[in-house]
Amino acid sequence: MNLSPLLQELISALRALPGVGPKSAQRMALHLLERDRRGALSLSVALEQAVENIGECRRCRNLSEREICAVCEDGTRDASVICVLESPVDLMAVEQTGGFNGVYFVLKGHLSPIDGIGPEELGLEQLFARVDQGNVSELILATNPTVEGEATAHYIAEQLQQSSVNITRIAHGVPVGGELEFVDGGTLAHAFAGRRSLKRSADV
Amino acid sequence: MNLSPLLQELISALRALPGVGPKSAQRMALHLLERDRRGALSLSVALEQAVENIGECRRCRNLSEREICAVCEDGTRDASVICVLESPVDLMAVEQTGGFNGVYFVLKGHLSPIDGIGPEELGLEQLFARVDQGNVSELILATNPTVEGEATAHYIAEQLQQSSVNITRIAHGVPVGGELEFVDGGTLAHAFAGRRSLKRSADV
Ligand SMILES: [Zn+2]
Ligand SMILES: [Zn+2]
Repeated sequence: MNLSPLLQELISALRALPGVGPKSAQRMALHLLERDRRGALSLSVALEQAVENIGECRRCRNLSEREICAVCEDGTRDASVICVLESPVDLMAVEQTGGFNGVYFVLKGHLSPIDGIGPEELGLEQLFARVDQGNVSELILATNPTVEGEATAHYIAEQLQQSSVNITRIAHGVPVGGELEFVDGGTLAHAFAGRRSLKRSADV
Repeated sequence: MNLSPLLQELISALRALPGVGPKSAQRMALHLLERDRRGALSLSVALEQAVENIGECRRCRNLSEREICAVCEDGTRDASVICVLESPVDLMAVEQTGGFNGVYFVLKGHLSPIDGIGPEELGLEQLFARVDQGNVSELILATNPTVEGEATAHYIAEQLQQSSVNITRIAHGVPVGGELEFVDGGTLAHAFAGRRSLKRSADV
């Protein structure tokens, strides 16, 4: 097809966006060029700035442009309650419920021996060290209710079986096999309220 | 919500893309930052390059980074057959059928007195001048089969009633009320093959 090479490049670059096929990429490129060049430039700048400046929080592994993220730095939050999540998307979903006032620890994945993802890749030593330091009263395991998410939650609970920290798992409300980020806020809030202990001793 | 300001900016900048709501923008931003930073940077560069360098072809008003676009410059195409379209998206749809070997004229809209869009905004004087110069054997009016598209086609046909150029309208195959860009290639090719003259005299 006789297209401007730069337009062709833009269309194929837009394919990097999840869920964007060739037709949508074409529509997006033409929309921006014909109707929203300012929006296109803002997006260009925002992408560059984000990629260059956003790293991960040293404390919780959440996406952050500072060494310590805004949640970890917020003195009004209860740093003794740590919610363990698979990804920053899940963190945003929980934050949006507005019902959680603790802090987070982002695994950036789940245990998956086949893909070479073990405890180290998930930063679990860092998490366990934090628990060992004391000052942590509860660890809420909010990994996805999938086979891998459950396995990861159980592995963490197992490793901390001897420590004094409370270990809970978010409960009913989150549909089995689903993913946290697609769950509505009410359901998520429910799941937090109904969390239960995973420690064998805690049930006695 | 306690988000990184740069992440927040990226999410809202992604909303400039058509069909992208707050949830998708969030997913896109996190996907790029977590899994495809290289893709994000390529997209940033492609957007900037496209906005800075893509203007419109002086001859056909198609999007082009050169004064004269690749189609207009292509010596193997029949410049005596001009296909008149509402937008560059339609041009791409017709090009993708591979069945048209003429050139184009892009109106970038349709007549819409309410919105202050008259013949001047559509570049019609430029089109009529090109017809007046001779060397044009046929004008294929391929505006959308909507009320406005039909009105625009009829206005053009009316204005050229006295000239010797053949004026045709793409025919059956294109669903009434639909838009060219959503029509599949086969249907579009059909519509081109079945075009009919709009000149009263041509039917006698
Ligand atoms: Zn943090
Ligand atoms: Zn051109």
